[in-house]
Amino acid sequence: DSNLKIFALNSNRPLAEKIAEHVGVELGKLSVDRFSDGEIQINIEESVRGDNVYVIQSTSAPVNDNLMELLIMVDALRRASAKTINVVMPYYGYARQDRKARSREPITAKLVANMLQNSGVDRVIALDLHAAQIQGFFDIPVDHLMGAPLLAEYFIREGVADDAVVISPDHGGVTRARALAEFLKSPIAIIDKRRPRANVAQIMNIIGNVKGKKCIMIDDMIDTAGTITLGAQALIDAGAKEVYASCTHAVLSGPAIERLDKSPIKEVVVTDSIQLPAEKQIKKIKQVSVAPLIADAIKRINENRPVSPLFKRIFQ
Amino acid sequence: DSNLKIFALNSNRPLAEKIAEHVGVELGKLSVDRFSDGEIQINIEESVRGDNVYVIQSTSAPVNDNLMELLIMVDALRRASAKTINVVMPYYGYARQDRKARSREPITAKLVANMLQNSGVDRVIALDLHAAQIQGFFDIPVDHLMGAPLLAEYFIREGVADDAVVISPDHGGVTRARALAEFLKSPIAIIDKRRPRANVAQIMNIIGNVKGKKCIMIDDMIDTAGTITLGAQALIDAGAKEVYASCTHAVLSGPAIERLDKSPIKEVVVTDSIQLPAEKQIKKIKQVSVAPLIADAIKRINENRPVSPLFKRIFQ
Ligand SMILES: Nc1ncnc2c1ncn2[C@@H]1O[C@H](COP(=O)(O)O)[C@@H](O)[C@H]1O
Ligand SMILES: Nc1ncnc2c1ncn2[C@@H]1O[C@H](COP(=O)(O)O)[C@@H](O)[C@H]1O
Repeated sequence: DSNLKIFALNSNRPLAEKIAEHVGVELGKLSVDRFSDGEIQINIEESVRGDNVYVIQSTSAPVNDNLMELLIMVDALRRASAKTINVVMPYYGYARQDRKARSREPITAKLVANMLQNSGVDRVIALDLHAAQIQGFFDIPVDHLMGAPLLAEYFIREGVADDAVVISPDHGGVTRARALAEFLKSPIAIIDKRRPRANVAQIMNIIGNVKGKKCIMIDDMIDTAGTITLGAQALIDAGAKEVYASCTHAVLSGPAIERLDKSPIKEVVVTDSIQLPAEKQIKKIKQVSVAPLIADAIKRINENRPVSPLFKRIFQ
Repeated sequence: DSNLKIFALNSNRPLAEKIAEHVGVELGKLSVDRFSDGEIQINIEESVRGDNVYVIQSTSAPVNDNLMELLIMVDALRRASAKTINVVMPYYGYARQDRKARSREPITAKLVANMLQNSGVDRVIALDLHAAQIQGFFDIPVDHLMGAPLLAEYFIREGVADDAVVISPDHGGVTRARALAEFLKSPIAIIDKRRPRANVAQIMNIIGNVKGKKCIMIDDMIDTAGTITLGAQALIDAGAKEVYASCTHAVLSGPAIERLDKSPIKEVVVTDSIQLPAEKQIKKIKQVSVAPLIADAIKRINENRPVSPLFKRIFQ
C-alpha cells in the first residue's frame, strides 16, 4: 500500500505545517540548503519509494529561487522512486505572463508549466490561477481550487455580508466577483476604468449601486495595490459606507503596504497562499487560512475521490 | 540569408560586449527588467525572425535568477521565430550536482540540461564543464571549449612557464593539469590528500618534484578556495619557489577572497567566464578574457566550420 507523504519547501512552511496537521500526517524529513555559492542543495531524508508524495511550494518571491527549489525537489523525488509526485502550488508565480501582450514577449506561465511537467510532476493542485487558461498549459491533471468560499465565510462571520455589494475592480474580474457574491447572496457592481486620452488621468465610473453600502472589492491578487486603492477612493466618492478589499494572493510588492495603510479601505482580507513577512503584517490585513481547503483536496485525491464541489472553481 | 545576432543577458555583459566586438556585430536590442514583485520581464526589441541567435549567459550567482532569465529569453526567441537558438554558457551553474553522491539527491546538472533542451535551445556552447559527462546530458550539439590555452598563454607571456611544474590539486584533476602542462611543456605533480581517520586533519602528500620550482596549480573552478590555499601551503612546505593558482571559473564565494589574499599564492590567474564584482578584484587576481575563444567558436559554428582544434577540450 502507498503512503501519503507531505514535504514542505521554503516558501511557506507555516501553511505546509497547517496542511499536514489537517491531513493528519507529519511533514516528511527533508533538508533544503544553500551551498556557499548560492546553489540549492536538497536531500530527502526519508524513503519515498512507492509513496504518493505532495510537495507544498508557492512560487512567490523570490520566485526564481522558489521555482528552482521545487523543480530540484521533483527531480530528487523522481530519482528516489516516488510513486506519484503531486505539486501543491498555492500561488503560481509568473501567472500574469500568460499570453503575448506585445510582439516578442515570452509566455512564462507556459514555460513554468512545461518545466513542471517535464521534470516528472504527475499532478498539480493550484489555487485561483490568474487565468483559468493556465490549466490548459498542462497535459497532466490540474486541480484548480478557489478561495472565495473561505473569504465569504470570513465576511459572513464578521457581519460584513449583510447589505454588502461585491465589487469587481475591473471588467476582467466580473466572474470572480460573481462567485463571491453568490456565497454572500449579495449584488455586484463593477468599476469601469477609462482613460479618455493618453497621459490623462483615468476616470473611474461605477456601474451599479454602492450608495450607503458596504463594498467588498475582490481580486485574485493584490500586488502593488494601485488598482484596489484607487478603486476604494472611487467607491467612497460614490457614497459607499465602508470599503473592504479581498484577494486570494497577497503579493503586496513595492508600495503596496503604504498604499493600503493610507487608503480608506477598512480591512484587507487575504489568504495565506503567500507567507506574509512580519513587516507586511499591518493591522488592517486579516488572514484566512487555505490549509483546510488544500488538506481536503489532498485527502480526496489520495482516496481517489473528486475534489469537493464547494471548493472547485465554478467561475471558469 | 540568416543573420547572426548576439544578445547579452545580465550575468556578464562586459564579456558579451567583448564577444560581439570580436565577432564584429552589435549586441541585439533587448530589455531585461524586473516587475515590482521580482518576476523577470523580457522584451526582445528587434526582429529575430529567421536569424541565427546567440545568447550569452553564465549561470553564475545568483544562479536561479540567471538561469530563469536564460530560459525566459529562449522562450521569447522561439515564439519570435528565431531560426536557431544557440546558448553560450561560459559558466554552467549546478555542474557539480552531476551525480547522486548520496541516496535521494537530485542531479541538478541534468535538470538544467533538460530545461534548456525542452525550452527549444538548438545548441549549447560551454567552457570547461566541471565534468565532461555533462555533454552527454544533452541530445543537442554541445561545443565544449577549454580555457587552458589562454591560461597557458598568460603564463608564457609573463615568463612563469620556464622551470614550472603544473600541479593538480587532487586526483580528479590530473587530466586537466596534463592539458595545461602540454601547452607549457612542463612536468606535472599531484597533491595527494588523505584523511587517516575521521575528524583528523588531512595529510597532503606531493607526488612529483616541486623543490625550487614555480608551481602552477590548475582547477576548473575556484569556489571557496579551501583546496587551493591548503595545497599552496603544502607546496611551499615542500620547497616550492613560487606558487600560482589558475582556473577557468572564478566562483569565489564565501571566504575565497580572504583566503586567497592571506595565502602564499603569488598570482591567481582566472578567466572572465564569471564577471568579477569590484569587491573581489584584489591585486593578485589576474583576468584573461575568453572572448576571442568564444567569438571564434561562434564564427566557425555560424559558417558551418568545425571549432578550432586548439580550443577544443582535448582532455576528456
Ligand atoms: N509580475 C508582474 N507584475 C506586473 N505585471 C505583470 C507581471 N507579469 C506580467 N505582467 C503583465 O501583466 C499583464 C497581464 O495582466 P492581466 O491583464 O491582469 O492578465 C501582461 O501585460 C504582462 O506583461
Ligand atoms: N554549489 C556547490 N558547492 C559545493 N559543493 C557542491 C555544489 N554543488 C554540488 N556540490 C557537491 O560537490 C560534489 C561534487 O564535486 P566533485 O567531487 O568535485 O565533482 C557533490 O558531492 C555535490 O554534492
